[in-house]
Amino acid sequence: MTKLELQAIGTIHSPWTQTGGMPIQPRYAQDAEGTVEVFASFVPGLKDLEGFERVWLLYWFHQAKESRIQVKPFKDDTVRGLFATRAPCRPNPIGLSSVRLLGVEGNRLRVADVDILDGTPLLDIKPYVPEFDHFDIQRIGWLATASGRTMSDHRFGDTKEKS
Amino acid sequence: MTKLELQAIGTIHSPWTQTGGMPIQPRYAQDAEGTVEVFASFVPGLKDLEGFERVWLLYWFHQAKESRIQVKPFKDDTVRGLFATRAPCRPNPIGLSSVRLLGVEGNRLRVADVDILDGTPLLDIKPYVPEFDHFDIQRIGWLATASGRTMSDHRFGDTKEKS
Repeated sequence: MTKLELQAIGTIHSPWTQTGGMPIQPRYAQDAEGTVEVFASFVPGLKDLEGFERVWLLYWFHQAKESRIQVKPFKDDTVRGLFATRAPCRPNPIGLSSVRLLGVEGNRLRVADVDILDGTPLLDIKPYVPEFDHFDIQRIGWLATASGRTMSDHRFGDTKEKS
Repeated sequence: MTKLELQAIGTIHSPWTQTGGMPIQPRYAQDAEGTVEVFASFVPGLKDLEGFERVWLLYWFHQAKESRIQVKPFKDDTVRGLFATRAPCRPNPIGLSSVRLLGVEGNRLRVADVDILDGTPLLDIKPYVPEFDHFDIQRIGWLATASGRTMSDHRFGDTKEKS
């Protein structure tokens, strides 16, 4: 089997330099602004991106400790299956955030609603497209009765909690 | 820098055994059903997942050819920056699809709205949560005037086109 190896294509800069007290989702980030620095060889791939209002960032949870298969997530006091949460301590520590795109200047994206730790390695940028990404659904499992917590603490060590 | 290495945590089984004529997004998959097989050591992570109506699948575009930084996407006749498209030939070939969860039986998820090639390595499962994943936006760049095509052809070689 081919080795599944990734490369950082840039670095995410944000106001969040530690895991305590940072937002656990873009929805809770209260317009926090950041910068996505894209390494030079990938800059031609940014063409046409500025027309989009939001983009998905995929990134590497670089401060996540070893993966756990069940966790007590931030919004609950019960141990849940990892894949039923957005916790960072995943077998493949890939984060996913929809951020607001304020502008593209050279190799830098100015973004808002940032819930990502400063210095995080960037893996991918995809346009956010309602036709592809919006589904009207009702059932959200344990999150239907979850707490209203929106900020992280240090329970996952040096990284943030995602749900 | 730490090596960014992934591991397959399962395999996605679907009706789509070749890249021509398959849906380019879950939205266009017309209820096509598939099975997500999760390798044994990750099964405890599926606890609590069944309560969710949809899940995000992250997966490895295993049939994608070498990455290109600009592409002529399926829904357009103009060359676009790769990051303004959902094309599979990405520097980090990670696919993202929101599929409908029909049931969880042991190490298998029955899913619908599958736009993923049969045999694709699974990287992650995350719950689909409207509060986290829905954003009402207006601007969708070049896709605002894109074609209505919803099925792939072979333009990206042995893999499918995503947008």
